[in-house]
Amino acid sequence: MDKMRVGIIGVGNMGSMHLSRFLDGKIRNAELTAVCDINKDRLYRLKDRFPESVGFYENSNDLINSGCVDGVIIATPHYDHPIIAIDAFNAGLHVLCEKPAGVYTKKVREMNEAAKKSGKAFQIDFIMRTNNAFRKIKQMIDNNELGKIKRIVWIITDWYRTQAYYNSGGWRATWAGEGGGTLLNQNPHQLDLFQWIGGMPKRVRASCYFGKNREIEVEDEATAYFEYDNGAVGVYMTSVSEFPGTNRLEIAGDRGKIVYEDNKITFFRTTVSEEEFNKNCNNGFDKPEAWKCEIPFDDNSGDDAVEKMINNWVNAALMGETLIAPGFEGINSLMISNGIYLSQWEDTWVDFPFNEDLFYDKLQEKINTSDFVKKDVDETLLDIDNTFHK
Amino acid sequence: MDKMRVGIIGVGNMGSMHLSRFLDGKIRNAELTAVCDINKDRLYRLKDRFPESVGFYENSNDLINSGCVDGVIIATPHYDHPIIAIDAFNAGLHVLCEKPAGVYTKKVREMNEAAKKSGKAFQIDFIMRTNNAFRKIKQMIDNNELGKIKRIVWIITDWYRTQAYYNSGGWRATWAGEGGGTLLNQNPHQLDLFQWIGGMPKRVRASCYFGKNREIEVEDEATAYFEYDNGAVGVYMTSVSEFPGTNRLEIAGDRGKIVYEDNKITFFRTTVSEEEFNKNCNNGFDKPEAWKCEIPFDDNSGDDAVEKMINNWVNAALMGETLIAPGFEGINSLMISNGIYLSQWEDTWVDFPFNEDLFYDKLQEKINTSDFVKKDVDETLLDIDNTFHK
Repeated sequence: MDKMRVGIIGVGNMGSMHLSRFLDGKIRNAELTAVCDINKDRLYRLKDRFPESVGFYENSNDLINSGCVDGVIIATPHYDHPIIAIDAFNAGLHVLCEKPAGVYTKKVREMNEAAKKSGKAFQIDFIMRTNNAFRKIKQMIDNNELGKIKRIVWIITDWYRTQAYYNSGGWRATWAGEGGGTLLNQNPHQLDLFQWIGGMPKRVRASCYFGKNREIEVEDEATAYFEYDNGAVGVYMTSVSEFPGTNRLEIAGDRGKIVYEDNKITFFRTTVSEEEFNKNCNNGFDKPEAWKCEIPFDDNSGDDAVEKMINNWVNAALMGETLIAPGFEGINSLMISNGIYLSQWEDTWVDFPFNEDLFYDKLQEKINTSDFVKKDVDETLLDIDNTFHK
Repeated sequence: MDKMRVGIIGVGNMGSMHLSRFLDGKIRNAELTAVCDINKDRLYRLKDRFPESVGFYENSNDLINSGCVDGVIIATPHYDHPIIAIDAFNAGLHVLCEKPAGVYTKKVREMNEAAKKSGKAFQIDFIMRTNNAFRKIKQMIDNNELGKIKRIVWIITDWYRTQAYYNSGGWRATWAGEGGGTLLNQNPHQLDLFQWIGGMPKRVRASCYFGKNREIEVEDEATAYFEYDNGAVGVYMTSVSEFPGTNRLEIAGDRGKIVYEDNKITFFRTTVSEEEFNKNCNNGFDKPEAWKCEIPFDDNSGDDAVEKMINNWVNAALMGETLIAPGFEGINSLMISNGIYLSQWEDTWVDFPFNEDLFYDKLQEKINTSDFVKKDVDETLLDIDNTFHK
């Protein structure tokens, strides 16, 4: 079997991580044949590290149409994700795209259509889907261990970032450059798991704070309240300026409660359905019996999830391996974060799916009326290999 | 010193608990001289247990004006709390009133005025204020261990109650009879601590579910989001139908985070102010140092808090002992729960203090338009001595 030929578009922080997996020989069934960046310094500093055969491009379309790649990894700023992905699909290429799927769902919907039409392997880089703790929780929910879900709460306030982080790039944390704050940069991982495990909510009511504890234009803190079709409710809280933050997922259902915290899963399992218990109980203060169960899982949080996602995508393209994070699902977490912004901007409930034209117009308004000037910008590449939740 | 002469008004579930402390000789500086209940069966069943000298009354005003009491304990349904307290203050009596302070703040404000005018010892029976865990957390906050508070979250979903509980009294969990659901019956304890420890919020946005998982007219589940003057945010979640529920209080501040759960207090203490750290940090992914501290406290959760609250009130009346839960503060937790209802009813933000006439009118509307008919009502006295958080 021939190896898949892969090009990397964008060799900033995330692109460099992907690139290193190829350089380190971790990608078994693919070879890196092209790299691209609009920043020439960043691009050509890599020249010495590759054989002559690797193509260097300053423009994504040149790489896409070069004929020397079967698939591309997109690691550009967020706005360009769906634009470049559409070009790639239209050229018949496989796509592994960094999260988020894009900045606004309207464009991501176009990307999904192009992907569907192309039939190519399409993955969004939700690396946390490889984490066995969350895979286990998803499996328990899918196996109906909890019964009907009543409540899902994620306190994920441990995405600590300093002002220096925001000052590391002029595009960072601006409406024009990044299109959002922590919901669009760090939280897509948990927002994806939130909907992957708990399903898509029916509507949201949320509060964001823009530049509350960091000098940025976008949100550094958000709290969202969700309602679901089955009557369940959800709460999601995040912040970049609390230390030490919390990472606690709690899912309550008819058969008890699952709590994930400190990389442990605890299942408080009732021996009967709460609904049945309540129906048959004659004493006002009786309670069901519940067992505190420590749920084992093969802790792989130290594994290289970036490598795993690339190999999975390559194998999906070459031999139909099941994708860990099918690209089409990337729109879900983005729909949630867009909905949270819209709820804040309009100060009202937002039903899913919301009016995508309205969101787009509001976002343009934020960009066009922006008078935010970033101070102390120091353009640097950050060493991020150990900074995210794997 | 003469003993204080105390009358108990209402000898249902809570009144019986107070009464037992007198019968068991636990109240050192007071004697029970009168009891009152509008339910004659409930009242006169007690006749044999007291000396002839104890007065029996079928009407609270007869007891108040009997001349045989210096103070009263009010343990009637909620609506009557401020009405009877006002009568008592006007007659120059000390008052220990069950929580909540009342059903709507407008009336409670009148009660507070009557109390102030009388100058008598006035306590609301917030027994959880005697709990050393919460006293410790309050002390830590007051001592500024956390610095500026950023976020306060209480998941208190362990107020499990079955339908049988709600069927134990026709007045229970109706707008006309009780004036609210779990926010007014079980949660006043935590809502009081929430404001006692974290201060009063500036505004609230909340969602309640009325009769979601129990056949009742009022809320069995609520989620509220708060904003504070200093920029902090708060989230409060409660439910009566989840098992096993959660009781987790988390307070994040500039100097770390306090977590109360499983009757343990953990303080994650940063060695520097987060704000200072952020200001002086040059690396985007650096983090402050934080120490995980187990905070000791003398666990008194098994103590008899009811007894403690009565003795404290008696001693305040007789010798000026500092009240554990000054009655004037009862309006705060009620303002929060009223605000939560108003936010749900109007589907909007509610600023504190809100329009109390509007709230009163809305409540009357709920009562007057109610078509709720309780099924399977079985009027019983419940044994509640071990059912609440002490």
